[in-house]
Amino acid sequence: MRFEVLSREGRARRGRLHLTHGTVETPTFMPVGTAATVKGLTPQELREANTQILLANTYHLWLRPGRDVIAQAGGLHAFMAWDGPILTDSGGFQVFSLRERRRLDDDGVTFASHIDGGEHRFTPESVIAFEESLGVDIAMVLDVCVRLPADADELARAVTLTTAWARRAAAARSREETAVFGIVQGGVDRSLRERSAGDLVRIGFDGYAIGGLSVGETREEMSEVTRFCAELLPDERPRYLMGVGTVLDALHAVEAGIDMFDCVYPTRCGRNGRAMTRSGEFHIKNAAYRRDFEPVDPSCTCFVCRTFTRAYLAHLFHAGEMLGPRLLSYHNVFLMNALLEDARRAIDRGGWTAFASGIRDA
Amino acid sequence: MRFEVLSREGRARRGRLHLTHGTVETPTFMPVGTAATVKGLTPQELREANTQILLANTYHLWLRPGRDVIAQAGGLHAFMAWDGPILTDSGGFQVFSLRERRRLDDDGVTFASHIDGGEHRFTPESVIAFEESLGVDIAMVLDVCVRLPADADELARAVTLTTAWARRAAAARSREETAVFGIVQGGVDRSLRERSAGDLVRIGFDGYAIGGLSVGETREEMSEVTRFCAELLPDERPRYLMGVGTVLDALHAVEAGIDMFDCVYPTRCGRNGRAMTRSGEFHIKNAAYRRDFEPVDPSCTCFVCRTFTRAYLAHLFHAGEMLGPRLLSYHNVFLMNALLEDARRAIDRGGWTAFASGIRDA
Repeated sequence: MRFEVLSREGRARRGRLHLTHGTVETPTFMPVGTAATVKGLTPQELREANTQILLANTYHLWLRPGRDVIAQAGGLHAFMAWDGPILTDSGGFQVFSLRERRRLDDDGVTFASHIDGGEHRFTPESVIAFEESLGVDIAMVLDVCVRLPADADELARAVTLTTAWARRAAAARSREETAVFGIVQGGVDRSLRERSAGDLVRIGFDGYAIGGLSVGETREEMSEVTRFCAELLPDERPRYLMGVGTVLDALHAVEAGIDMFDCVYPTRCGRNGRAMTRSGEFHIKNAAYRRDFEPVDPSCTCFVCRTFTRAYLAHLFHAGEMLGPRLLSYHNVFLMNALLEDARRAIDRGGWTAFASGIRDA
Repeated sequence: MRFEVLSREGRARRGRLHLTHGTVETPTFMPVGTAATVKGLTPQELREANTQILLANTYHLWLRPGRDVIAQAGGLHAFMAWDGPILTDSGGFQVFSLRERRRLDDDGVTFASHIDGGEHRFTPESVIAFEESLGVDIAMVLDVCVRLPADADELARAVTLTTAWARRAAAARSREETAVFGIVQGGVDRSLRERSAGDLVRIGFDGYAIGGLSVGETREEMSEVTRFCAELLPDERPRYLMGVGTVLDALHAVEAGIDMFDCVYPTRCGRNGRAMTRSGEFHIKNAAYRRDFEPVDPSCTCFVCRTFTRAYLAHLFHAGEMLGPRLLSYHNVFLMNALLEDARRAIDRGGWTAFASGIRDA
């Protein structure tokens, strides 16, 4: 893995990430393909919508279809027929949100599958081995996630264990082609964030993620912690903000010096009939759209906006037709990718501040 | 509308149907786009899968989104972004299957919407006017459908009323660009079928459908009635068998001299995980396919079979991912279209009998 910063404006930066399965222009949005599929979309469509890199979920793939099936298929890329870069999360976030169904100890975490109740165990080593076996471009280390608000002791323990696990994950690496990123924890506590970032940087990773956000804190807290953490991370390494995916949060992230982020938001909204645009979101099932023959987003150039009307999409959602979620997911992903493409161009040209405030004020 | 028979082998015939929105090579399969969408597929994909003509359902479109919305959109083609030929059924089949929720009189049928219980009324005239307002290429007349087995009196009354309504529908036509087809009824009673066909031919339609099948009779009965009815219909007009869509039923139909047929079967199977091939069907969720890295149908050249494996589709269905239904629907529609394309080629070359028995014996 190699990362270069090509240009800057304020803290915002425009870079290039060279990965095993291709080059990613940053800052970039990563659509989420939880179970080896971005819900409703083909790999071809993801490409066509200018997706550069996907995220897939270790927790889900571990349980189903499992390591053996994917290995037999020739790895995750072959299994899902996506030949571009893939990043896998570590499953930490999912396992810790199981709450009553998991048991944490210093060595790892034991949990009951949400599918069949079967017992499984993640350790820093088993997770890295799994991610490497998938053949992904970027593997995240197993971290300890805490739901906010949390008391200071719990947060501090989570940071300590996250560091210890990160050290073990780094030692367990066995595959050059898979880059490994550490994950900064610490909630909204600055001194804990500082300690976590310092610990991880001392261990040394290919890139660093800011985790433990979008878990109950306010938007202002998230924004502030992101900005604070980004400053703590080495300038020459990519910075990844986990779980962010609205238009405004994307602008905040880029402004804070973030290079990558992911979220189910655009596809989840798409499935639920929520259309994203640069000037706001709207629900396609609102009565107003039944007879609205404009594209979903008149300023969008995606296949859906070039082909169909709001009235048609409204009809599909009213009729419960699966084409509706599919088309709106496509548009929302395209929109996020196009937003980031324009953001990169703006940073290149020194027009980032004007670009971002133009969208914020829209 | 113009129809030409280009070649024949036995009763099987290979023809060409010139419609307002394009030319259809026959015999042809028509995928069903009930609510102005073939479930899960875009118009572009339908084209790519070699679909020539779609069927849409009058009953569903009448209730939702309704005549005004489609008219404002510029007609059904513009509304759903499909620029090829469209045939609409008359809604007769759907209304008569409501049973407790409809009231038949000589003039028409009053029914309660399955969506909101609202009262609606179909007459032969209102249905033709609706279909013409959609701007479709072929409109079916409103017919009286009977669930089989039915007693002789009920069947005879249905035939009498179907003829009377067909006469009124023919008189109500006002639009050159929309061809109108009559529908032969009469259950499995040969003399009733004879009377129905004779009545309709005397009225004179652009084409003739065989209705009232696939409603509870045995496959042998269906096959026999199809063959019998096809013989009663004028050679120079297209013959349409309603509600047929398996590989073997398609062969029977072509063999009987049918030119067009439609069914939800390929897309419904696709949504339910049932894969169609020329040598039989299988359920993708069966344990055997979890580690099967062959294409769904190794002899198929469709996008899905060229791109994905059975193991991946099995995974999508096990995980409840909407990409699964979508991909398998695509394959099944492609398969039916390819089957008919090969059937046309076989008839052209005088190889139909060998072609059909080759598939039957597979």
